[in-house]
Amino acid sequence: MLIDKKISNFLDELASNSPTPGGGSVAALAGALGVALISMVGNLTVSKKKYEDVEEDIKKIISSSEKLRYELSQLMEEDVKVFNNFMATYKMPKETEDEKKIRAEMIQESLIKAAKVPLRVAYKCLDILILSQEAAEKGNVNVVSDAGVAALMAEAALESAILNVKINLKMIKDEKTKKELSFSIQELLLKEKGQKEKVLEIVEEKLG
Amino acid sequence: MLIDKKISNFLDELASNSPTPGGGSVAALAGALGVALISMVGNLTVSKKKYEDVEEDIKKIISSSEKLRYELSQLMEEDVKVFNNFMATYKMPKETEDEKKIRAEMIQESLIKAAKVPLRVAYKCLDILILSQEAAEKGNVNVVSDAGVAALMAEAALESAILNVKINLKMIKDEKTKKELSFSIQELLLKEKGQKEKVLEIVEEKLG
Repeated sequence: MLIDKKISNFLDELASNSPTPGGGSVAALAGALGVALISMVGNLTVSKKKYEDVEEDIKKIISSSEKLRYELSQLMEEDVKVFNNFMATYKMPKETEDEKKIRAEMIQESLIKAAKVPLRVAYKCLDILILSQEAAEKGNVNVVSDAGVAALMAEAALESAILNVKINLKMIKDEKTKKELSFSIQELLLKEKGQKEKVLEIVEEKLG
Repeated sequence: MLIDKKISNFLDELASNSPTPGGGSVAALAGALGVALISMVGNLTVSKKKYEDVEEDIKKIISSSEKLRYELSQLMEEDVKVFNNFMATYKMPKETEDEKKIRAEMIQESLIKAAKVPLRVAYKCLDILILSQEAAEKGNVNVVSDAGVAALMAEAALESAILNVKINLKMIKDEKTKKELSFSIQELLLKEKGQKEKVLEIVEEKLG
């Protein structure tokens, strides 16, 4: 599992001439880093007298952020799996016409699967971006910069995931699937628009 | 060393109620993730016949990106060190007037050190952001999305690092230092402006 690797080894493998792990894993990891910071802000806020009014809200934030962190860890693994699956289809036999046809179909199928994982990552990152606002608004002011970092990571992760959808989309032939994926990308971009800026405005105000 | 930790452990520690590691380490790590992707793009471009014209440029890119990756790994450790040092000064004795004075001075000194590490991270991330453009322009088109992810990570890391400078800046009293740090932040923001967008434009064009 990617998540069981040492950071130094993960960075070495990333930098190497092996295509996995790559940008897809980085997108999911960046989302996980962002959402872990939301948990930290939450954990440095609960049980503090100064913040007892928001105690229940903060507990809900932590529960959401920990759920998202788990989901992103799973998606990191999933991303490698579908990419390796895609690479494997390229190595299928292509001697006969039948083999060529089956291989082409399998490549297309694996491409669609490979596009759908970063799409799920992107939607999770949108959730993180929205959650970071509540963390910035209600969390311990001493760590408000961490809520800002969470928003920055979530936006970058979301847009990184979209680039990974697009690079697969480029090779997908089925028009219906292409339209569906493009629609999802447009929806994500529309929903994220201005959200990071909103969080950073709250953070900057509290940083004085 | 942070970099020797398993990713899962690092995420757990990040999410916990311990203030380190925090946003400062995430900023440096995000920069390292971005620059590792530039190395990957480079390593998937060198020795390929299609890209022999840019072979020398690509080798230079890899050499720069690997140097930056090393520096960011160092800064990740440095960030924890200066933060823990800052926390330690708070625990200094403050019984007598003399003790109070020395403690206050030490807090200020450690705060300035704690602000300067993310500042160095931010400058390194600016270098990564600029380098990602060359990777997008000259690198293997099959992994152009990874050059885009590198730019997204570098910008988010740069801005995260700046938030970490600002949270320290807030408590620094020395006017000269405050001015110097604010000037550096302005310089960074000015130089990064539009750079990510430039890289993403190249990436999007190649993604067709």
